[in-house]
Amino acid sequence: MNTLYQNHLIRVEIETSEIPWLKIFSVQPYKEFSQCDPDTKVAILQALDVIEKAMLQTFQPAKINIASFGNYLPQVHFHIMARFNNDSFFPEPMWGKKQREGQLALELTAFYQTMAKTLAQHCG
Amino acid sequence: MNTLYQNHLIRVEIETSEIPWLKIFSVQPYKEFSQCDPDTKVAILQALDVIEKAMLQTFQPAKINIASFGNYLPQVHFHIMARFNNDSFFPEPMWGKKQREGQLALELTAFYQTMAKTLAQHCG
Repeated sequence: MNTLYQNHLIRVEIETSEIPWLKIFSVQPYKEFSQCDPDTKVAILQALDVIEKAMLQTFQPAKINIASFGNYLPQVHFHIMARFNNDSFFPEPMWGKKQREGQLALELTAFYQTMAKTLAQHCG
Repeated sequence: MNTLYQNHLIRVEIETSEIPWLKIFSVQPYKEFSQCDPDTKVAILQALDVIEKAMLQTFQPAKINIASFGNYLPQVHFHIMARFNNDSFFPEPMWGKKQREGQLALELTAFYQTMAKTLAQHCG
């Protein structure tokens, strides 16, 4: 477990990667997003918004990627990733065909420390 | 262009596939979801909700998948896909490694016809 933030509705975890990559889980074991209670939906969307803006501001990535699959783990969780022209998979999704050996050297630890504080401020 | 529904905020297109697969675009050329105006955000989320519920009710899929990448086309659009244990890629994402020759025979045309009406009812 690599939990960055948790409240009574959502839990945010770090995915270890060359890129900034966070996962937002519902605390309740909902299978699909449309089945979440309204408060959980809002909490997930608010966290997505806060994280995306922080990634854009901190890293100026080529693109933000958002995904919610859950085919292996059928519980609601959203991936949010900052993508770069020279990461190992761009422009393919992170689940696609590897394009190159990525040479990114991003300050991920500092970003996640700040992100934990920002989530606590914005998401209670 | 394979447009199923459009209003002044969003456009819903069909992705030709063995699975039920729709794409929701913002009409305005926003690059990132967090940069959308509030009305566009709500319209996208409302369409996602309506489509996901219709896919669940009609097909009883193993899982719904949602994704917003835009690495090739940097304009906000969300993919929403109904996934099945025997589709060609499950449990990998539709952008992952092919697992088998899928043998689905779903009534997609009828679903999309009904979906167009449902979107018009719920999304104005």
